[in-house]
Amino acid sequence: MLRMVDVIEKKRNGEILTQEEIRFFVEGYTNGTIPDYQASAFLMAIYFQGMNAEEQGNLTLSMVESGDRIDLSAIAGIKVDKHSTGGVGDTTTIILGPLVAACGVPVAKMSGRGLGHTGGTLDKLEAIEGFHIELTNEEFIKQVNDLKLAVIGQSGNLTPADKKLYSLRDVTATVDSIPLIASSIMSKKIAAGANAIVLDVKTGNGAFMKTEEDSIALAHSMVAIGQNVGVNTMAIISDMSQPLGYAIGNSLEVIEAIQTLKGEGPKDLTELCLVLGSQMVLVGGKAKTLEEARGQLEKVIADGSALEILGQFIEAQGGNPAIIHDTSLLPQAAFKTEVKATATGYITKMEADDIGIAAMLLGAGRATKEDAIDLAVGIVLEKKIGDAVEIGETIAVIHSNIEDITQSKAILQKHIFIEEKHVEPPRLIGKIITN
Amino acid sequence: MLRMVDVIEKKRNGEILTQEEIRFFVEGYTNGTIPDYQASAFLMAIYFQGMNAEEQGNLTLSMVESGDRIDLSAIAGIKVDKHSTGGVGDTTTIILGPLVAACGVPVAKMSGRGLGHTGGTLDKLEAIEGFHIELTNEEFIKQVNDLKLAVIGQSGNLTPADKKLYSLRDVTATVDSIPLIASSIMSKKIAAGANAIVLDVKTGNGAFMKTEEDSIALAHSMVAIGQNVGVNTMAIISDMSQPLGYAIGNSLEVIEAIQTLKGEGPKDLTELCLVLGSQMVLVGGKAKTLEEARGQLEKVIADGSALEILGQFIEAQGGNPAIIHDTSLLPQAAFKTEVKATATGYITKMEADDIGIAAMLLGAGRATKEDAIDLAVGIVLEKKIGDAVEIGETIAVIHSNIEDITQSKAILQKHIFIEEKHVEPPRLIGKIITN
Repeated sequence: MLRMVDVIEKKRNGEILTQEEIRFFVEGYTNGTIPDYQASAFLMAIYFQGMNAEEQGNLTLSMVESGDRIDLSAIAGIKVDKHSTGGVGDTTTIILGPLVAACGVPVAKMSGRGLGHTGGTLDKLEAIEGFHIELTNEEFIKQVNDLKLAVIGQSGNLTPADKKLYSLRDVTATVDSIPLIASSIMSKKIAAGANAIVLDVKTGNGAFMKTEEDSIALAHSMVAIGQNVGVNTMAIISDMSQPLGYAIGNSLEVIEAIQTLKGEGPKDLTELCLVLGSQMVLVGGKAKTLEEARGQLEKVIADGSALEILGQFIEAQGGNPAIIHDTSLLPQAAFKTEVKATATGYITKMEADDIGIAAMLLGAGRATKEDAIDLAVGIVLEKKIGDAVEIGETIAVIHSNIEDITQSKAILQKHIFIEEKHVEPPRLIGKIITN
Repeated sequence: MLRMVDVIEKKRNGEILTQEEIRFFVEGYTNGTIPDYQASAFLMAIYFQGMNAEEQGNLTLSMVESGDRIDLSAIAGIKVDKHSTGGVGDTTTIILGPLVAACGVPVAKMSGRGLGHTGGTLDKLEAIEGFHIELTNEEFIKQVNDLKLAVIGQSGNLTPADKKLYSLRDVTATVDSIPLIASSIMSKKIAAGANAIVLDVKTGNGAFMKTEEDSIALAHSMVAIGQNVGVNTMAIISDMSQPLGYAIGNSLEVIEAIQTLKGEGPKDLTELCLVLGSQMVLVGGKAKTLEEARGQLEKVIADGSALEILGQFIEAQGGNPAIIHDTSLLPQAAFKTEVKATATGYITKMEADDIGIAAMLLGAGRATKEDAIDLAVGIVLEKKIGDAVEIGETIAVIHSNIEDITQSKAILQKHIFIEEKHVEPPRLIGKIITN
């Protein structure tokens, strides 16, 4: 008979836990026989002593087994999921869904809402009037088989262990532990039914992982978990030291996604979508090489078929598909205020987390889970790192429904740096991690 | 407004906590506004990151302030307390009390019961028929002023924070953390009203601290806490790789204490009492040098005055003082079984913890707090490490009230090692720690 105190002590002493010990913890914590105070001591021990790949795999699978697991076997083909670790202005999901669906890869996506300075895909999609995410399991599967693309909210009793642990980590200073982050993310993806996972691990001040080293470590952990549990997984490290694209805010990001699907999107956002999309098409078995996959993606942008799938997808989920041709049908903010450069020189730094907070303060995001958000508002950048600016030139436009935007404006002025010497833009795509 | 999650994170990151932060934790945890799960994560962070002397002093004082503090100011003189970190066959308190009292040092002692393989002074004293530890505060103080010696059980609302934390540590694998052990011990001693503290920190397999290095670290921590909070504190490291003296068991240890006060006790037990007692007499201001103090102690043994105080003390607390001249009045076990040497050679090892467990299994100690104990039973060793033995010679005598002593006997056979080569006895007295 296992005792939790012994399992805690074993991990505290830096030993490797067995599958049985990890399952004992996850099951006991989920059903309440192991109390919060033992779980939190255990989490802190993991924070300090880490977990090897096998332990992380076992923790992930135990969390998956703690609840329901979505069965996507009724969908033909390899179900490839993409996960981003969260950033500012990151609208890749809305672009990648139609993009890889147009190449024949089925996208059965479960998405979440945003919190803090990072946005959530569900919030962005709900900027489209009438769009809803409440599909039955049958509707969801039928839609993926018909259109290759459907998105639902997180539903059912998926990974209850992870939910309970996440709440506990939040109040016990055990959030930023790579094995715990990796197993939390991977358990949700695996429970959601993915056969293969492409991870976009953000790095920089707008990301959860502030340093490239930590991002790479997290990516290696998640890829190892995937391999341990038999789910084909790879990761791309991408820059989040400045916002991705130009738009930050729900409606504004949908517009940018549409532009990107028309081939008129920001260079960085487009490139990241092509890189992630190529991996998805490749692991989805719809191309033999990354080059072939990229060619297909460029083709479905050029011939309009990706955009067309976006329209069909919006219509299938109750939204007005006309927005793909007339983005003025999306919510519009009452006020647009230009933020001017206060010096001449080059943009050397745009701190993504602070810019995300400036958008949140306008109402584009939530400070707490209960906050309502304003889908119309946000920020559209006019410049990115490396761009030249003249004093008095517009560097960003604030879209707001409130007149007093002093605070958001001050944040932008402070966290967009203009200096005399030119700097190169940050490298967008970092390491590709396949372990 | 402090948030506990931030205090946990600060310690987790290896930072030094302020007095305010430590007090916030101790007060909040005691009054229930800080939940167990935050406390246990915090304790685990302390386990890994440690605490400096000032933090440990603040933790100790906050725990003292969490409850009542005994006021011994009505007792004339410097109240010197002694604390041993617990061992097997350690009957020093019963010897030292009369010994230093006979030299004029007031001993106002609060004692506890034993748990696991280590014995408690209260249990030993209760082997004396009629002896009771329920004194009112007034009786306690009057007795110390009259006889210089009184012992009571832990009473009142002393260090409730420590009690609550200790229970939590026990089930969260955070017991063996030196800052937590040191502050727990010191808070109890300080709350009990000591002006000066002499610590006997045991080292070896029968002690809580198994290595000399850990014992020294614990001693330094406790001495630093004492100095930080203005209580004169020093520590002696003493050996607990084999039991102290020959007797293990409550009545048996009282007999050994009486022998020692007559000058006929085991060499190691006598020496340790003289060393600790000299320090107590010195810090108690009754001698100018350790040599002078030792001379006084030897005198009160030789002239019988220490033994006489033991008798008066027993009588004052309801026991029969005749036992000091006739130890057969103490509880006697029904059976005495000799354990024989199975080889010829030298005793090279006597694992104190296992020997303590052998005595516990006879009924001399408690496995859980609720267990009743048999005051008569135990083990009397006939040999110690370094002694020569012949095959078939008695190495120990088991005193039992149960006929089946197979298990205890097997433990003794296994954990008393007889080998061909001679080894020196372990050094009894190690470092003297005054920081």
